[in-house]
Amino acid sequence: MPAFETSIPVRFGHVDYAGIMYYPRFFDNFHAVFEDMFGARLGVPYMSILKDRRIGFPTVKIETEFRRPFRFGEPMRLRLTCTRVGRSSIDFHYRGFNGAETEPSVEARSTVVTVNLDTLAAIETPPDIRAVLRDLHET
Amino acid sequence: MPAFETSIPVRFGHVDYAGIMYYPRFFDNFHAVFEDMFGARLGVPYMSILKDRRIGFPTVKIETEFRRPFRFGEPMRLRLTCTRVGRSSIDFHYRGFNGAETEPSVEARSTVVTVNLDTLAAIETPPDIRAVLRDLHET
Amino acid sequence: MPAFETSIPVRFGHVDYAGIMYYPRFFDNFHAVFEDMFGARLGVPYMSILKDRRIGFPTVKIETEFRRPFRFGEPMRLRLTCTRVGRSSIDFHYRGFNGAETEPSVEARSTVVTVNLDTLAAIETPPDIRAVLRDLHET
Amino acid sequence: MPAFETSIPVRFGHVDYAGIMYYPRFFDNFHAVFEDMFGARLGVPYMSILKDRRIGFPTVKIETEFRRPFRFGEPMRLRLTCTRVGRSSIDFHYRGFNGAETEPSVEARSTVVTVNLDTLAAIETPPDIRAVLRDLHET
Repeated sequence: MPAFETSIPVRFGHVDYAGIMYYPRFFDNFHAVFEDMFGARLGVPYMSILKDRRIGFPTVKIETEFRRPFRFGEPMRLRLTCTRVGRSSIDFHYRGFNGAETEPSVEARSTVVTVNLDTLAAIETPPDIRAVLRDLHET
Repeated sequence: MPAFETSIPVRFGHVDYAGIMYYPRFFDNFHAVFEDMFGARLGVPYMSILKDRRIGFPTVKIETEFRRPFRFGEPMRLRLTCTRVGRSSIDFHYRGFNGAETEPSVEARSTVVTVNLDTLAAIETPPDIRAVLRDLHET
Repeated sequence: MPAFETSIPVRFGHVDYAGIMYYPRFFDNFHAVFEDMFGARLGVPYMSILKDRRIGFPTVKIETEFRRPFRFGEPMRLRLTCTRVGRSSIDFHYRGFNGAETEPSVEARSTVVTVNLDTLAAIETPPDIRAVLRDLHET
Repeated sequence: MPAFETSIPVRFGHVDYAGIMYYPRFFDNFHAVFEDMFGARLGVPYMSILKDRRIGFPTVKIETEFRRPFRFGEPMRLRLTCTRVGRSSIDFHYRGFNGAETEPSVEARSTVVTVNLDTLAAIETPPDIRAVLRDLHET
């Protein structure tokens, strides 16, 4: 399966005084695409993984490069792939494109850990989730 | 005791494309002053009311008037009073002043309900909290 | 034309410690549906009204009732109508439904003023925008 | 001068469904301490650098490690140092401590570029700002 891609507009209230996307806001958008990918690829809402199965994915590391700013009204195409599926840790790659651009204007590499949501202790990533993540790569 | 007052700056990332405080952000600030009031007046952190006593205060109604905008860098003095303490419902009055202004630039009246945090069912407001709230008025 | 309606999920990071939609977040969602309505009904992005025409719509008043909480993962259907188009002031009505509910769980009535974005002074709402707003009602 | 340090509480609405600080929120806090440092060390509000001098500092890169979660009500001590002052690019180091901890629970290294706020083009960092930043280190 190809990367998961969705489009998120740069909204009126999400820019800063400089008139460009306030950089903390990117991470909120990264999480939105992360949630939506699970819903689309696992076939159950992201919520049910947490609420029903008590599994969570806290971010332990994220490295982000902001190459070109996004301005109010510009659409951000966000593209998510999974670059490594370990026993409990998982690496993701986010790329944000401004409109029809082919080079990402923002790029992030994150590591999350699969945990028991009640104890926050690392657990092995369940097979159905591993299968989805292994399939989430550039074709 | 007088009204509870605190100062919250209008930050770089909290304005909108028009360069003024993004209006949803006011409500985040209202909640901050609400939390800080409990810590200051009850003598225990707001958190402990929720975590240790399993009591919460969801907002059921809020009416807000935005009279003059707040711009990036301007300090907002937020003043909180309690105007009614019912059995489980409580009315609050927020006024936000721009710098040394004596007329509020933003003003809100809210009603919250004291609830059991686990069931979200209304409960009687405990006596120690009632005492703090009855004391939270203009002198 | 009927009311403008869109669906916004209650996301993982948009709840509070009580596990329900953090109430300031509703206003961010109200603004999102406001922006999207203009794009859908005026045929140009909301952004272009502000950037190209230098027109803005600051909120001067909003009254909100929160009847039932929204929990993480629940979809919020947001329905926007316009209830009055004055010379420069405009009244809107927001209703948020939880999933397939027919009674709104959250309801807000707001007044915005059409302004020159550079001076923030009130101006007459332009005819093309008036036409869109007059058409934004329950049928 | 020593590192700049301030304390920011983990608020009721700033946690996620897992009950811990929603990770995008850390970056909003990092920006708050960045703004406050300028006010405290330069002797003029951060706002005046942007508004009056038309200078901005967009973040071009940030690497963050989240070692231990922050829970609602826990105070986060944020410590900011500057680790490199180039011609126009500047490196910062953020460490967030949970209460009295001596090891940071969150740590970030960012690079910002000094720009003309109107063109967003890189400019040489002005001498008074360089002086403040060179002084912002561990003693």
